[in-house]
Amino acid sequence: MARWQPNASERLALAALELFAERGYENTTVIDIAQRAGLTKSTFFRHFQDKREVLFGNGTMNGLLAEAIAAAPATATPLEAVAQALDAVGRHAFTPARRAFAVRRRAVIAANPELQEREALKGLGLTASVADALQRRGVPGLTACVAAELGAFAWKIAYERWSETTEGDFSDIARQALSDVRAASARC
Amino acid sequence: MARWQPNASERLALAALELFAERGYENTTVIDIAQRAGLTKSTFFRHFQDKREVLFGNGTMNGLLAEAIAAAPATATPLEAVAQALDAVGRHAFTPARRAFAVRRRAVIAANPELQEREALKGLGLTASVADALQRRGVPGLTACVAAELGAFAWKIAYERWSETTEGDFSDIARQALSDVRAASARC
Repeated sequence: MARWQPNASERLALAALELFAERGYENTTVIDIAQRAGLTKSTFFRHFQDKREVLFGNGTMNGLLAEAIAAAPATATPLEAVAQALDAVGRHAFTPARRAFAVRRRAVIAANPELQEREALKGLGLTASVADALQRRGVPGLTACVAAELGAFAWKIAYERWSETTEGDFSDIARQALSDVRAASARC
Repeated sequence: MARWQPNASERLALAALELFAERGYENTTVIDIAQRAGLTKSTFFRHFQDKREVLFGNGTMNGLLAEAIAAAPATATPLEAVAQALDAVGRHAFTPARRAFAVRRRAVIAANPELQEREALKGLGLTASVADALQRRGVPGLTACVAAELGAFAWKIAYERWSETTEGDFSDIARQALSDVRAASARC
């Protein structure tokens, strides 16, 4: 497994995660996070708009999803295009080296209502990005939105399953989750 | 149309909505809201945990949804039970007398990221209540969750459509939205 070399925003996220776990979200300042990461407060604010934001990346996920959906074969159904997007997430974001981070991140968010709110809103943003990307492929509006909703739910299940096991690629787990969700939707 | 007689929590929500629209969410305090409603700060905190919460009811919606799902005929499919829940929302919460409030509420939330976050988290809570109620009817876990997700999306569409028109019952609009979402899910 290649060693993960975090960049500035990842170093800030790791530092924040450590501090939130050690002393609580409320008792951690942006300056504390920057110091722990060996960076400055102004570097923090170049990457993140506020303290809540530090565990939610810096918008790269929306682009990753949109690109993967655009690149899906022209013959792909909406959910097949969504599956390509989940694959891309497994290859570029939720890599094996990042699993430990994901586990700790989930625990910190689960303990803090403010972070849960930010996560809920971020989820809506990702779902909207997927729906937009599907519409740009010519998928009708409502179908694109429903495919995005089903994809978002599969993502949520896959993220839980992936962070609860010690092996298995996110892409494989996500493909299975999407297939399970699709089958369940036919039984509703 | 019967005149709507707001109770304390509704008076607080109306007062908050007026003040948020007049001077902005950030520039309104809990004391301002209580004063405008002719109530005290302690009454405010008996109904709502914080300022963000005032536009999101006081938990009665979760119970309303759960009761309606429990009362659906034993032969109802998961989405038919969800349709009963949306009907109940139209009868008891999103009544014609409350449409004007809904329109103004949407505009205020759309203008404020903090309120959008709270709304996103509240949406997840309502979806979880519906999924739990379906599971208590014996619907398998994943199917219950997917039905709840589709129901939540239909609710969102219905709420938009209902607050954008001047006529039509929420129940009828929601039934149509659920039917549209169901048809779209088969095309994914």
